[in-house]
Amino acid sequence: MDPIQPIKITKGIKVIDLVNSFSNCGFNANKISTAVEILKEAKKEKCTLFFGLAGAMVPAGMKQIIIDMINEDIINVLVTTGANMTHDLIEALGDKHYKGDANANDAELHKEGIDRIYDVFMKSSVYQNLEEFFEKNFENLKDKKTIKEFLWEIGKLVDKDDSILTTCYRKKIPVFCPALSDSGIGLMIWNNLMMDKKISFNEFEDLKEILDIAWTEKKKAIFYVGGGVPKNYIQQAMQFSSPASYGIQITTDNASFGGSSGAPLKEGISWGKMNEKGKFVNVNCDATIALPLIYAGFKG
Amino acid sequence: MDPIQPIKITKGIKVIDLVNSFSNCGFNANKISTAVEILKEAKKEKCTLFFGLAGAMVPAGMKQIIIDMINEDIINVLVTTGANMTHDLIEALGDKHYKGDANANDAELHKEGIDRIYDVFMKSSVYQNLEEFFEKNFENLKDKKTIKEFLWEIGKLVDKDDSILTTCYRKKIPVFCPALSDSGIGLMIWNNLMMDKKISFNEFEDLKEILDIAWTEKKKAIFYVGGGVPKNYIQQAMQFSSPASYGIQITTDNASFGGSSGAPLKEGISWGKMNEKGKFVNVNCDATIALPLIYAGFKG
Amino acid sequence: MDPIQPIKITKGIKVIDLVNSFSNCGFNANKISTAVEILKEAKKEKCTLFFGLAGAMVPAGMKQIIIDMINEDIINVLVTTGANMTHDLIEALGDKHYKGDANANDAELHKEGIDRIYDVFMKSSVYQNLEEFFEKNFENLKDKKTIKEFLWEIGKLVDKDDSILTTCYRKKIPVFCPALSDSGIGLMIWNNLMMDKKISFNEFEDLKEILDIAWTEKKKAIFYVGGGVPKNYIQQAMQFSSPASYGIQITTDNASFGGSSGAPLKEGISWGKMNEKGKFVNVNCDATIALPLIYAGFKG
Amino acid sequence: MDPIQPIKITKGIKVIDLVNSFSNCGFNANKISTAVEILKEAKKEKCTLFFGLAGAMVPAGMKQIIIDMINEDIINVLVTTGANMTHDLIEALGDKHYKGDANANDAELHKEGIDRIYDVFMKSSVYQNLEEFFEKNFENLKDKKTIKEFLWEIGKLVDKDDSILTTCYRKKIPVFCPALSDSGIGLMIWNNLMMDKKISFNEFEDLKEILDIAWTEKKKAIFYVGGGVPKNYIQQAMQFSSPASYGIQITTDNASFGGSSGAPLKEGISWGKMNEKGKFVNVNCDATIALPLIYAGFKG
Repeated sequence: MDPIQPIKITKGIKVIDLVNSFSNCGFNANKISTAVEILKEAKKEKCTLFFGLAGAMVPAGMKQIIIDMINEDIINVLVTTGANMTHDLIEALGDKHYKGDANANDAELHKEGIDRIYDVFMKSSVYQNLEEFFEKNFENLKDKKTIKEFLWEIGKLVDKDDSILTTCYRKKIPVFCPALSDSGIGLMIWNNLMMDKKISFNEFEDLKEILDIAWTEKKKAIFYVGGGVPKNYIQQAMQFSSPASYGIQITTDNASFGGSSGAPLKEGISWGKMNEKGKFVNVNCDATIALPLIYAGFKG
Repeated sequence: MDPIQPIKITKGIKVIDLVNSFSNCGFNANKISTAVEILKEAKKEKCTLFFGLAGAMVPAGMKQIIIDMINEDIINVLVTTGANMTHDLIEALGDKHYKGDANANDAELHKEGIDRIYDVFMKSSVYQNLEEFFEKNFENLKDKKTIKEFLWEIGKLVDKDDSILTTCYRKKIPVFCPALSDSGIGLMIWNNLMMDKKISFNEFEDLKEILDIAWTEKKKAIFYVGGGVPKNYIQQAMQFSSPASYGIQITTDNASFGGSSGAPLKEGISWGKMNEKGKFVNVNCDATIALPLIYAGFKG
Repeated sequence: MDPIQPIKITKGIKVIDLVNSFSNCGFNANKISTAVEILKEAKKEKCTLFFGLAGAMVPAGMKQIIIDMINEDIINVLVTTGANMTHDLIEALGDKHYKGDANANDAELHKEGIDRIYDVFMKSSVYQNLEEFFEKNFENLKDKKTIKEFLWEIGKLVDKDDSILTTCYRKKIPVFCPALSDSGIGLMIWNNLMMDKKISFNEFEDLKEILDIAWTEKKKAIFYVGGGVPKNYIQQAMQFSSPASYGIQITTDNASFGGSSGAPLKEGISWGKMNEKGKFVNVNCDATIALPLIYAGFKG
Repeated sequence: MDPIQPIKITKGIKVIDLVNSFSNCGFNANKISTAVEILKEAKKEKCTLFFGLAGAMVPAGMKQIIIDMINEDIINVLVTTGANMTHDLIEALGDKHYKGDANANDAELHKEGIDRIYDVFMKSSVYQNLEEFFEKNFENLKDKKTIKEFLWEIGKLVDKDDSILTTCYRKKIPVFCPALSDSGIGLMIWNNLMMDKKISFNEFEDLKEILDIAWTEKKKAIFYVGGGVPKNYIQQAMQFSSPASYGIQITTDNASFGGSSGAPLKEGISWGKMNEKGKFVNVNCDATIALPLIYAGFKG
């Protein structure tokens, strides 16, 4: 047995050294370092990494990490919520999210046109830029055969280095968003459909594509930030192809409530989603803390 | 100020009396009774109730409560996950979920063809009945213009009193499932599309419909079991129509992680999703406990 | 395998019937019914039940359940926090706790002399009655050799049917409170020591007593509401005598954080605190909901 | 309003730079940086910092951080659990904690003489060294008038640079442990009392001392790792002297369950424990991650 070694913090300590020292500790600190090791091994083994991104991660300031992970070929397939893609687009169109106050008076915020996401604020006027963008560009967007191509086209149109959508487009990283209608982008599409326009994509073409990728790739890893649709959509792609061999899950949900978001990765072994000889870790921590630590630990 | 009155449990006590006594207690017991009061007032005021159902509620045994709440006109609009509808269909086709063991060996379960959902087991052979059903009935299903009609048709075809799908069909309760491709039913559709069949619906027709309902109904209530897409989809329908006046949320998530699932309902006031003069409660409890208590308290 | 059976709520349903139906469900509903079965079997087997009570359970209105469980010989040894005993004494002296508002302005409450415990209020003037009580009765209290006898004497002095302290005294139920100095009662003792009075007890006499009981009793059960000192104090008594055979734990804490409060009971097997062939359940639920349900289910 | 600025992770990034970038993010990442700012301001203002340490922090490898924070005059008063002091003593006597497996078979561990604390292992043979130590040194220990002096004497006797106890002794940092009997050290004292030895301290002498400090110090800060007795003991010292002006709380508990451990610091304003103009932050994160980040951010 290896002894626990108390963490020693030195002045100017690097994140990589802190994370390395976590490997000799217990509890979720240890899990952070395990996540880094699993990510390193998965990428060394040239696994295709399916990344599920739920939660309000773009508003909270996690966008650049996702962009860098795509640019550095860490993330090979992205599944996310319509909300995250909408917030990415909002920023790409020049609007911002702001540092706010979780205890603000919501009725007053409403009068001032401010939407609150815990301690992050957003002006409700962002929807005007969104509307304008979709009205102007619907012709370019409407004939896309999949949601993925639709999102890629948005990324191409906004053409911003600091956009997840643009980065996915440029790197040709498949970006899946099975519940697109459940988002601001979805509402903008509806807006245009109301004006008798048409769209060509449907979500099952995307489903076909992620299943094709999952079938084709033999070495697979999964990385979940939160649960929800992004996790479940990747999990079922594994179930109906072949199990993943490496897995990292950052969640604050709890197994005993029985939902997918809190289910430990090993539960997936019973379904054939995870390889019984695979390496998995569940990190119980706010993703705004755990994701930067894991990525910084991986980067070195 | 009203004094706290200690709960007195008598032999044979009814749930309604327990819940009433909760109203004189603190913490989440109190919230259960508040939820009952809000639900009563909302229905007395003839509010249209939008019910968001996430989590593995059908496998856990919550199906009949949803069915009864639909039959008794408590639930007027249902938004749920593809998973819950798939599990409902699985049972309607004659398969079952089983009481299992959360500590079972997942590799052994896999060998035995058993999928684990915390302490609930399901045979992986259920997919055969699903496949058969969809192959046999795809002709009936493929021309539906919305996911809602597609799901109603399934409910009509299976024709079971103890099916949520059948109940929605019979009662003409709109059932929305914006991420249908993220589920077993979605996989069955993909299966048939692979055989060069076609479907006619797309998710934006459903989006149009829920927004129409949200626009038309003036008095609205919301009731969320868990978060995820079902909650967010209803929330955005409120945002782009008019705010809800009554709200109940059962969640085990936490506001400080910033996700929609943990956001207290009052946050929705800033977005115009909730009426600032509305009545809202967040119950922090496993829904398998809270939902039966609230419904039994409402029923009397 | 036994199938999951959806819960059916009927008008006027009794708690016992609801809890029985929980036994055919999954997740924490199932755990509630398991807790009832374990409690029944433990008492049928005439186990000595050590009950650990943490959290603000008296302010929240759980007092009478504890009193009834003592009077009905369900609880045989009580370990609790100084806070719960202080709140019990406060009510025995005629003061009350009140239904409050979790979102109240704390600065204004302070000005009004109101102390807040989430959504429960207490007047800060309660300390006057406490002071008076201890000044008047210190002579009777000071010579007690153990904290248990000190607390029994308080219970005898206030002599109220609806006091946990009085009930422990009358039933001769050992009540342990290892961190008594960490409470309002503790402050009152300090107050009197400042006036050059003396007390005779020390906490190690109580430790000796609980260890003696744990040694002597061969059939033991444990029941924890929350964690903290009450749980740990009982756990160590098991460790240094013989393991408990039945266990129920109501907690909202999580195992992965490594603290005692979130540790599943089975972890205690490694320490010799729990019998490896024992029956244990961890219920993840607010105790103000779970405790009434379990007790009502037990009572029938 | 200040915009959210996405975190940019560079190769070799320092913790201080990561924490600084957290200040432009949302959710608990932001709270980590707020905690650093509060700690800096509190120490710049020469506040006396009361540090409450609960949870199995020594077994998890957090010991050296506490030692350094004492040596660097960040922690001025320490309140902790008997368990943490016992584990500190165990290591000072030459035994270790080990990296283990949270999914290990507890019955087998028990046979092998291994006690499990989530994913940390400890040999049950450590109790032999403890017994020997106390037998040998009881003479030196028994006449101490307070638990604090008793613990200081232990620290003096073991005389180890990497012991919290020794560090408290050397720096004359008051260390309070109101529930000492609820720990391995407590059991060792009981062991010796059984051999007709005596001790002189009682917990109320310690209570007097912390209240004296709380009265005397005009500028006060509090820092809680977990809740339990350590937090509550400090909170009541504030309540009965004067409120603290700065506060940091690392907890994974939830306000709505009503317990002290999950109560946000601002609730303390109503009690007069916290200054209504003070600066407070609640960090919802495993302390094995949050504490190293906050301390490293403070250190620079």
